[in-house]
Amino acid sequence: MIIDIHGHTVAPPEMYAYQSNLLASRGNPVSHLKPPKISDQRLGEVLAGHVKILDEVGTDLQLISARPFHMMHSIKPERVVRAWTEFVNDTIARQVAMYPDRFRGVAALPQSPGQDLRACIEELERCVKELGFVGCLLNPDPTEGEGTPPGLGDEYWYPLYEKLVELDVPALVHSAGCSSPRESYTLHFINEESIAILSLLDSRVFEDFPGLKIIVPHGGGAIPYQMGRFRAIRLRSPELEPWDQAVRRLYYDTCNYSADSLSLLFRVMGTDRCLFGTEKPGTGSSVDPATGRWLDDLKPVIESLPELTAEDKARIFEENARRLYRL
Amino acid sequence: MIIDIHGHTVAPPEMYAYQSNLLASRGNPVSHLKPPKISDQRLGEVLAGHVKILDEVGTDLQLISARPFHMMHSIKPERVVRAWTEFVNDTIARQVAMYPDRFRGVAALPQSPGQDLRACIEELERCVKELGFVGCLLNPDPTEGEGTPPGLGDEYWYPLYEKLVELDVPALVHSAGCSSPRESYTLHFINEESIAILSLLDSRVFEDFPGLKIIVPHGGGAIPYQMGRFRAIRLRSPELEPWDQAVRRLYYDTCNYSADSLSLLFRVMGTDRCLFGTEKPGTGSSVDPATGRWLDDLKPVIESLPELTAEDKARIFEENARRLYRL
Repeated sequence: MIIDIHGHTVAPPEMYAYQSNLLASRGNPVSHLKPPKISDQRLGEVLAGHVKILDEVGTDLQLISARPFHMMHSIKPERVVRAWTEFVNDTIARQVAMYPDRFRGVAALPQSPGQDLRACIEELERCVKELGFVGCLLNPDPTEGEGTPPGLGDEYWYPLYEKLVELDVPALVHSAGCSSPRESYTLHFINEESIAILSLLDSRVFEDFPGLKIIVPHGGGAIPYQMGRFRAIRLRSPELEPWDQAVRRLYYDTCNYSADSLSLLFRVMGTDRCLFGTEKPGTGSSVDPATGRWLDDLKPVIESLPELTAEDKARIFEENARRLYRL
Repeated sequence: MIIDIHGHTVAPPEMYAYQSNLLASRGNPVSHLKPPKISDQRLGEVLAGHVKILDEVGTDLQLISARPFHMMHSIKPERVVRAWTEFVNDTIARQVAMYPDRFRGVAALPQSPGQDLRACIEELERCVKELGFVGCLLNPDPTEGEGTPPGLGDEYWYPLYEKLVELDVPALVHSAGCSSPRESYTLHFINEESIAILSLLDSRVFEDFPGLKIIVPHGGGAIPYQMGRFRAIRLRSPELEPWDQAVRRLYYDTCNYSADSLSLLFRVMGTDRCLFGTEKPGTGSSVDPATGRWLDDLKPVIESLPELTAEDKARIFEENARRLYRL
């Protein structure tokens, strides 16, 4: 079975028209907070296209969440973020209900820079307990490139970590937009992943929450490629566990569209720490002119890596996902 | 011949005592701007240690510049940055004069966020024409993590690019410190390199300055590992040159302490775009317990890569450096 842990919702324009309305009105008057009614038919039509894409590449089950660059966590007032997040999560729950064998929901959280995490914890609990979601996204930079939020190693995040452990669901580290004109959101994802890894592994988080499950997508930002740098620094602090051991406290997804890079990822992190993820349809949905294949069609890429055993592949495609998420 | 294009000055504590004095006094009264006289003997003693390190690993010639995290470009007032930068460049010129066969100088520039580049251009010209320096550092983030500077693709940088082309010297992209508690300076280097590559290649810079020579150190940040992501995005803009072609407008150094990653770098960028660089002594100067070797002793690592021909190695160790720098 092929489980893709990194997918995002494909939704009709009515959904984004609502976001536009929320943003323009700032949710004021409050009547503008009221979400539109998207019919089952409209939702189903668009979703059928998504399912067809999964069929084409042989994905059996995909975990879907809010489209990250649309999360807009830095928008004020916070009620706009909250209304939007709840609406997207509710819409995903409807999509999962339409194809219960093909999708599972992953919650977006109504993060707002500088605010405590009460709203996030409530929404996580609602999504897991009431909507049957299996995990959440965690944005390490709710300022969206405008500030200096506490690193994921900071105790600011502890109430959320506590709830994640209690509910026994993983968080997928995923930033949202980026306001800097020199850094696109898609590059910001990568940079934030590197920052997240360093911040977590330079902290006490995994001592304080040994059961916490954190997945870093896109093959772990820059870190598998820059191992030597952080290995060298760690060697100067012999009281810390070695870098190669520390990185294995985290999990990584395969949403990196090069065979060479995936080879490096598996070699460095171990196939027991890597989960199949493609973000499809998404950033990688371009046809490679050399092969005529979608760049985000990663199943044949991974299958063709000669160094992987059948056991490695079973872990990557299915077993690690079943172990981490409650599927 | 082994030419290491990425080294930093090793200087006695008197040098940093001066920086501390500058910072504490803000260069006010101006008498505090006056640099200390470090004797030839003091400078020579410390430098002999540096030369010994180069001897041990078989480096014939190293290009040295200011220790980047000490550049402190975001400090106010700007005259502090200027006095410090000039002092470090002058000290490096003295070091080069002591071992003219072993070192060449690379200039730091007195960059200050939000300021025009006149001071930088003056210092670049002084270093190249009067001190015989062969290139400069270029910090893409003089705010040191506190702001949103113009990307390297922005016309803000054009006066400097014009001068670099006129003097026919390369710039090595290197950020300085980072004020964010969640992002160490050493990780900031990596993230800033990824941002620099994207900003340059998404701009008109190389159309406007076809002779501009820009080197991205540390193996190019995250980009060689994340090629598929940016390849996919480029494929949706067929009017632009393909991503794999675009990245070859830049040069990269080998200052990445993993054999696997260097293999990936050479494969993706081509050995004609890669220059030997180690930053030794620096971040990588830890002994690998597995091999008993310094992690930044990269010569044997590169020599042992079975896929490289003698021609590839000659390019990486010597020829590309001679072609780019005027050595």
